[in-house]
Amino acid sequence: MRPVTAAANASRAAPDFTLRVRVYYEDTDAGGIVYHANWLRWFERARTDWLRALGVEHSRMLAETGVGFVVRDMSIDYRRPARLDEELLVDVRLVDARRASWTLAQHARRPGETEMLVGATLRIAAVHLASGRPTAIPRDLAERALARGARPNLLPNDE
Amino acid sequence: MRPVTAAANASRAAPDFTLRVRVYYEDTDAGGIVYHANWLRWFERARTDWLRALGVEHSRMLAETGVGFVVRDMSIDYRRPARLDEELLVDVRLVDARRASWTLAQHARRPGETEMLVGATLRIAAVHLASGRPTAIPRDLAERALARGARPNLLPNDE
Amino acid sequence: MRPVTAAANASRAAPDFTLRVRVYYEDTDAGGIVYHANWLRWFERARTDWLRALGVEHSRMLAETGVGFVVRDMSIDYRRPARLDEELLVDVRLVDARRASWTLAQHARRPGETEMLVGATLRIAAVHLASGRPTAIPRDLAERALARGARPNLLPNDE
Amino acid sequence: MRPVTAAANASRAAPDFTLRVRVYYEDTDAGGIVYHANWLRWFERARTDWLRALGVEHSRMLAETGVGFVVRDMSIDYRRPARLDEELLVDVRLVDARRASWTLAQHARRPGETEMLVGATLRIAAVHLASGRPTAIPRDLAERALARGARPNLLPNDE
Repeated sequence: MRPVTAAANASRAAPDFTLRVRVYYEDTDAGGIVYHANWLRWFERARTDWLRALGVEHSRMLAETGVGFVVRDMSIDYRRPARLDEELLVDVRLVDARRASWTLAQHARRPGETEMLVGATLRIAAVHLASGRPTAIPRDLAERALARGARPNLLPNDE
Repeated sequence: MRPVTAAANASRAAPDFTLRVRVYYEDTDAGGIVYHANWLRWFERARTDWLRALGVEHSRMLAETGVGFVVRDMSIDYRRPARLDEELLVDVRLVDARRASWTLAQHARRPGETEMLVGATLRIAAVHLASGRPTAIPRDLAERALARGARPNLLPNDE
Repeated sequence: MRPVTAAANASRAAPDFTLRVRVYYEDTDAGGIVYHANWLRWFERARTDWLRALGVEHSRMLAETGVGFVVRDMSIDYRRPARLDEELLVDVRLVDARRASWTLAQHARRPGETEMLVGATLRIAAVHLASGRPTAIPRDLAERALARGARPNLLPNDE
Repeated sequence: MRPVTAAANASRAAPDFTLRVRVYYEDTDAGGIVYHANWLRWFERARTDWLRALGVEHSRMLAETGVGFVVRDMSIDYRRPARLDEELLVDVRLVDARRASWTLAQHARRPGETEMLVGATLRIAAVHLASGRPTAIPRDLAERALARGARPNLLPNDE
């Protein structure tokens, strides 16, 4: 399989999807800022809604095939904190699509600002959740994901 | 079925099980105190470990029978807050055992103190999680739970 | 102080505020349904956004006066589970406004359905978070909350 | 400032601290495995208890100096899932101590096994939480942390 890598300046490219979130008490800790693990929940919400916009719902995929997406690895950069009541934008961008895993770049920022508060690069993979066995990400999903980003020549190979 | 009700002064009775927990950053919010929903997580941990001490593990029950315990209703009394780094004791006491639901009293307090910080009375029921259909709580589990509390004459009737 | 109680059929009255939420992986547990404590997070989000719509932000209140709202007590009725990817509506309704605490009714339901999945009646109070000392809820906030519900004659007494 | 780096084979070195955790319903999701963000909560609990064993409590540090530890960046490797009711060990090891930030390696594994389930390398820094301004990690804490690991010659420089 030949990897499909997006352009080098990917980190500045337009996101494929953006979710607006709000900081509630549940997200903060006694330090007065968002608890570090909770940024991952927002990133996952954004990925989920992006996949939903592409026509894939986790619940249906799980029920019909027993397959779910899992995070394989993740690098997170915590640049600036966020605080109670703030509104944030969480971006998703597909950086690399292989047969069984995708690499995504995600960023959280304040509306109207370009500065990143927290950013992550991560790899998600499709697995049979009961066994943990990896499986191919549905090819039509990859096609839709890549088309949406107007990058039709980045289609993953079948093998 | 005749209900099985523990003595009236149940709220002062010795607990059937006590779990020690610690307040970490994850449990607190920007108000500097434990976020109200997080007390329910500790109460559930205490119930789970109590059931484990009685020989029942949620995971095995789920895998073998598809049955899990769910909370049917709950009354919570938030008397005093807890703060970062505190150590707390969380009690479980079986108050009433019916065929398909149990009523429990739970309290959180500081070690060496009797004053309740947060208390709850709740009813748990056994259900087939896929369908939501109620089912009987295993009779031998009820027997062990009641024996442990030295209340052998409170055994629930079969029907 | 004379309590201010809403009409008896309050539970069927129109909500003062409704928040739309989505069930993500973070909200569910291995039983395949929403983890019971997580309904409280959604209820709190709805209360927070309702107060925001009334002109009050927790963060500003905390910074300016050290006062926050805490939950005093809560009764929750878990009628039906919710599952991954579902969309839900969470209602808030002011039932009773006293000088230092409000009673609220909250319900979660599916869009287009009237059946309640999970409902709660709870009492929130304003406290100085550092000391835990209760304080009056700002009277103008109470006025706006009651006006919004078109219940101008339910205004709380000053003392 | 000269960085203080632990030996190259650090990842195999004995941990400076190990915390035992249990997987509860709250930690899992509808996929039947531990929700990916929740591993970070366990890693943070282990760090907190390790610092406590070294004589530092977050709450006291916050109250006395307004300083807290924040995560600057983190790389996480999710190798194998964990499931409901499992018991896990979470290790902390100090890898590099600089004046204002420490690099830690953390791993979760099953008792009696050496295979890593999830591992992370992360950098924590001391900051004034109100302003976000970095500050030096107390030197005596660094000394105790390094001594505990029997690495007295890795003491950080003052400047």
